[in-house]
Amino acid sequence: MLWVIISIVVSLAALAVAWYFYGWVKKLPSANDKIDQIGKLIRDGAFTFIRREYKTLLIFCSAAAVLIFLFLPAPVWQGGHLGANLSMVLAYLFGTVLSAVAGVVGISIATIANVKSASAAKQGIAPSFMAGFRGGAVMGMAVVASSLMGAAILYLITEDHNMLMSFSFGASSLALFAKAGGGIFTKTADIAADLAGKVELGIPEDDPRNPAVIADNVGDNVGDVAGMGADLFDSNVASITAAIVIGSALGRVDLVFCFGALGLLASIVGVLLSRIGANGDPGRALNRGTYVTCGIFAVLTLAACLISGYELAIWGASMLGMVAGVVIGLTSEFFTGDDKKPVENVARACQSGPAFTILSGFSYGLWSALPSMAGIGLAALLSFHLAGMLGIAVAALGMLSVVGMIISNDAYGPIVDNARGLAEMGSLGDDVLEITDKLDSAGNTSKAITKGFAIGAAGLTVIALLGAFIENVQAAGGTVNLDLMNPLVFFGVLVGAAVPAIFSAMLILGVDRNAQKMVAEIHRQFKEIPGLAEGKEGVTPEYGKCIDIAAKGAIRELIPAGLATIIITFIVGFVGGVNAVGGYLAGNIVSGLLLALIMSNAGGLWDNAKKFIEAGNFGGKGSDAHKAAVIGDTVGDPFKDTAGPSINTQITVVSLVSSLASGLFVAFSLIK
Amino acid sequence: MLWVIISIVVSLAALAVAWYFYGWVKKLPSANDKIDQIGKLIRDGAFTFIRREYKTLLIFCSAAAVLIFLFLPAPVWQGGHLGANLSMVLAYLFGTVLSAVAGVVGISIATIANVKSASAAKQGIAPSFMAGFRGGAVMGMAVVASSLMGAAILYLITEDHNMLMSFSFGASSLALFAKAGGGIFTKTADIAADLAGKVELGIPEDDPRNPAVIADNVGDNVGDVAGMGADLFDSNVASITAAIVIGSALGRVDLVFCFGALGLLASIVGVLLSRIGANGDPGRALNRGTYVTCGIFAVLTLAACLISGYELAIWGASMLGMVAGVVIGLTSEFFTGDDKKPVENVARACQSGPAFTILSGFSYGLWSALPSMAGIGLAALLSFHLAGMLGIAVAALGMLSVVGMIISNDAYGPIVDNARGLAEMGSLGDDVLEITDKLDSAGNTSKAITKGFAIGAAGLTVIALLGAFIENVQAAGGTVNLDLMNPLVFFGVLVGAAVPAIFSAMLILGVDRNAQKMVAEIHRQFKEIPGLAEGKEGVTPEYGKCIDIAAKGAIRELIPAGLATIIITFIVGFVGGVNAVGGYLAGNIVSGLLLALIMSNAGGLWDNAKKFIEAGNFGGKGSDAHKAAVIGDTVGDPFKDTAGPSINTQITVVSLVSSLASGLFVAFSLIK
Repeated sequence: MLWVIISIVVSLAALAVAWYFYGWVKKLPSANDKIDQIGKLIRDGAFTFIRREYKTLLIFCSAAAVLIFLFLPAPVWQGGHLGANLSMVLAYLFGTVLSAVAGVVGISIATIANVKSASAAKQGIAPSFMAGFRGGAVMGMAVVASSLMGAAILYLITEDHNMLMSFSFGASSLALFAKAGGGIFTKTADIAADLAGKVELGIPEDDPRNPAVIADNVGDNVGDVAGMGADLFDSNVASITAAIVIGSALGRVDLVFCFGALGLLASIVGVLLSRIGANGDPGRALNRGTYVTCGIFAVLTLAACLISGYELAIWGASMLGMVAGVVIGLTSEFFTGDDKKPVENVARACQSGPAFTILSGFSYGLWSALPSMAGIGLAALLSFHLAGMLGIAVAALGMLSVVGMIISNDAYGPIVDNARGLAEMGSLGDDVLEITDKLDSAGNTSKAITKGFAIGAAGLTVIALLGAFIENVQAAGGTVNLDLMNPLVFFGVLVGAAVPAIFSAMLILGVDRNAQKMVAEIHRQFKEIPGLAEGKEGVTPEYGKCIDIAAKGAIRELIPAGLATIIITFIVGFVGGVNAVGGYLAGNIVSGLLLALIMSNAGGLWDNAKKFIEAGNFGGKGSDAHKAAVIGDTVGDPFKDTAGPSINTQITVVSLVSSLASGLFVAFSLIK
Repeated sequence: MLWVIISIVVSLAALAVAWYFYGWVKKLPSANDKIDQIGKLIRDGAFTFIRREYKTLLIFCSAAAVLIFLFLPAPVWQGGHLGANLSMVLAYLFGTVLSAVAGVVGISIATIANVKSASAAKQGIAPSFMAGFRGGAVMGMAVVASSLMGAAILYLITEDHNMLMSFSFGASSLALFAKAGGGIFTKTADIAADLAGKVELGIPEDDPRNPAVIADNVGDNVGDVAGMGADLFDSNVASITAAIVIGSALGRVDLVFCFGALGLLASIVGVLLSRIGANGDPGRALNRGTYVTCGIFAVLTLAACLISGYELAIWGASMLGMVAGVVIGLTSEFFTGDDKKPVENVARACQSGPAFTILSGFSYGLWSALPSMAGIGLAALLSFHLAGMLGIAVAALGMLSVVGMIISNDAYGPIVDNARGLAEMGSLGDDVLEITDKLDSAGNTSKAITKGFAIGAAGLTVIALLGAFIENVQAAGGTVNLDLMNPLVFFGVLVGAAVPAIFSAMLILGVDRNAQKMVAEIHRQFKEIPGLAEGKEGVTPEYGKCIDIAAKGAIRELIPAGLATIIITFIVGFVGGVNAVGGYLAGNIVSGLLLALIMSNAGGLWDNAKKFIEAGNFGGKGSDAHKAAVIGDTVGDPFKDTAGPSINTQITVVSLVSSLASGLFVAFSLIK
């Protein structure tokens, strides 16, 4: 139990750091009243949406809680299960609440740090970077600390890995909807603002005349900050849970908390050390932070293994996971970095028109899947050889070890993106804009890398969860035979592989529909509000209308996609039984990874190809190549920020649901 | 052996029908000299390309023959294998030659029937349809007859299923490169002609001033006719082979030839009965022909089963395959039909710009995978329950039973597409154009359905081939355990799933690169040839230059993609052994089906959304919506006609290579 206690202590330390950074950022001065007012508009918009989203989710979670109470771990009417079923409900709700709180903390700090980072840019790049980064770090520390502490407390009290599964399912199901909702909101606004503003009306990005500009900035917060926070909270909890389920069968739970605690400790040190010189390169600072954290983690865990007498094979497995994470990140960087060949080639193709932009970018996306998938497969293979199924679980922990640092980097992105918008709208001048542009661009690259990490970690975690699923089936008295030559398994694989596709399709179509509505609203305002187009003093657009369209659309679209995947899982389970479900999980994982990698990398590539042209290449801003690049970027937006990253969560949720319901599938399936 | 003999007899009958149709079409009159001349340009261009392509393939096939001689079925230096290895080479070459001949026959008739169909349109829709359809039927009969007869003769002589595998590999490897080469050629020309002609220069489709117009028509023949013929030749041979490998272990080979012969017989009857009234609907005539053929097949096989005393379960399995084929076809029709919701919705989205066109079309493509994949999985599952692995093989035979009819319908498409172009270039008048437009549009819909059939059949066939792979491993003294919880298997699955993605990427990038070159050439000609843009009498563009660009590009790009997939297969096999290869095949099948369905259906959808707008909806021709639709169509072109349909062949080739090399993997893999 030593490491469980240490986990709680380290988590408290991380929360203290988060608290300190929160105060530090909040105390920074604002540049002027105007920027404060606009900041308040964004903050209010974000909280309004989050309140509405959580209200909808409350209904869903209550329904799920009732179903859990009735059926899990066994039908409650069969007697003797009342306490167990009730505990499952409590664990589930604990997971949802912590996940929701993580989202709120993130938005709360991000909507302060954006103003402060923009304001600090008047003093130079270093203070502006620090405001953005430390704002992100609040989120990073809070998310990882709460997930580790939540798991530790739950394990201390119950010592039952089923409770952790329910906790993890609570976190994941909330993350699924929060990411879908946030992702639809943010891309609806982003696309509409770009298309109607930049392309049709010819006004610059973040121009305050654009009615969608505030909605766009709100979107960064509810989509990228809150959604991503919920996602990585969920990945972290799921990887801890998978490791505990597998570890508890072997009496090795201490190990899981050891790696969790030391990963968080390394992240704390990494975050505290991160800073940048007066003329520093923010992108390099972010990456250096990640590598430093990895190094500290490697040293700490090696020492812990030697001291605690763990086999070095276990340590090796965690290192394999970490290295695989870095490799996947570097792959993403190669395919999306603006100093690499793919971006240059796609930018060149833009000169021949939008069709070539799409074809070349999509092709590179297709290419990008192989190294990452082979990397995940190899890490799983080798870590299994080192330490069996536990090895895979530990590799996932290793990959997520530096997640505190990763989230800090990732939340930095939308904060400085917002800061850029605030600098533009708050008229802070061209010097400030130049700095915020630099910070923003660094955020984009680090985002691609962290996305690679998140996808890879989800991949390893769900492979481990497949092992957890089998443990659960056996515990429920069932037998699983996942031989691919069993046609039930193959049937499951085929259906499972199609699920991430329809899940993505529903989210993308949601963005597509809503963005078209918002574009129409922007046209209406420009036509009906006198003086708006000309930028007459004192005339402001009706920002609220656009926020409302994005919010309503997101709320309407966020439930169906997630629910459909859960329902299909139950259909497969109740028809084909546990063997079909096992195949279904494998198919889901494989095609989920494939589509997530293709969409994330193609999206990032198009975004940076556009930026590459905007930097003056191939005709620069306003050229036909630029117009084609904007179309590519628009297609990429929901790929990379709505569908792609939501697939992680989708496969995690499906894995957890299957494990939790495995007893039901054993008892009630049509085909045994 | 009775059914083997009957197969040869029926094949000869089919060849006689093909011979009769060939003469019938050739005797039809041509409208004028001009159309004959243009027809000759197309014919010469097609044959020139095919000669060059086959020259390149000769090198590849010779190298493959040497490798087969050295290594298959066992290293020749181990002694005692000389005869066996030599026979393998002969069987391989037999497959490549028959596949190549099928392509030549197809081009030979298609480049006659296009002129005749255009000319016959002066007499009305019925004679024009008959010329196009009977031209296609020559191809259909020739392909199926030669594949069935080839397999029957080989089996009669050797009674060795390994010979059939080598024969099938010959057919598939040639098909792989022929489809890739033809697909790159046709889409290079199609895209360049559309973008430079329709969009930039504003001249109508098939306008003789467009330097790429002949290349475009040549492409229809080398891509859609020859490539598709080679593809379905290969699918048909592969399904017969898989069934024989599995059937021979059970002493049930007669059954395979029974189903093959009756399927061809049904197709002969169906083709002979197909005709159309003076005011008939060509689309309906094509579909009616398919359904009639299915019905005849069902009755004939039921009778045969009752007479020959086969279990009804076997018959049931074949019907399951046939029904699944129809269901997949109908799914494709729903997602790509111009009277259905998806096409209308995508056309509507075109009004909001190209990004929405791409996003909505791609999303429907993602959606379309689920019903087809569930259908394939269900057909495999149920037919396995009826008759074990043999059931799956018979289901694949059932799905391909009507392939003679399917190819006839499919080859009809490019013939009437060409006829449309000839009518335009030969100045046959608006009445003729109206008729050829109708015929062309019917060809597009039937193409979507047949593509669904081809993908579904490939899916079932490769599942059966997975069974064949295991038989081969066991015959080589190895053991396979394809449990998904074996990390070697899972590693294979992950890598295998990424392969169709990079294969597609290479083909699409090939089209992308070449089309950009051809667009530049068109620009050059319009600038440098005086009088061309104004359409001055007697001024013709340099058609040959464009044909040359397409041909050179296709020849250069056709080898790498196919070769890469074969090489990766060997790497996986020699590193991970047969278990990794088994997983690799499964991953390859699943992601191959997924990507093929997504790309084929999204491509068809964009094409028809464009046609829907051109028919006067949402602004009609020349509107912004139309421009967006053209961009969608351009993106869809390599999706649906280059990458999508080539994936079938890719997964078949990889399956056959793995089976053939299974002995090597058993003996020489790094990890056992």
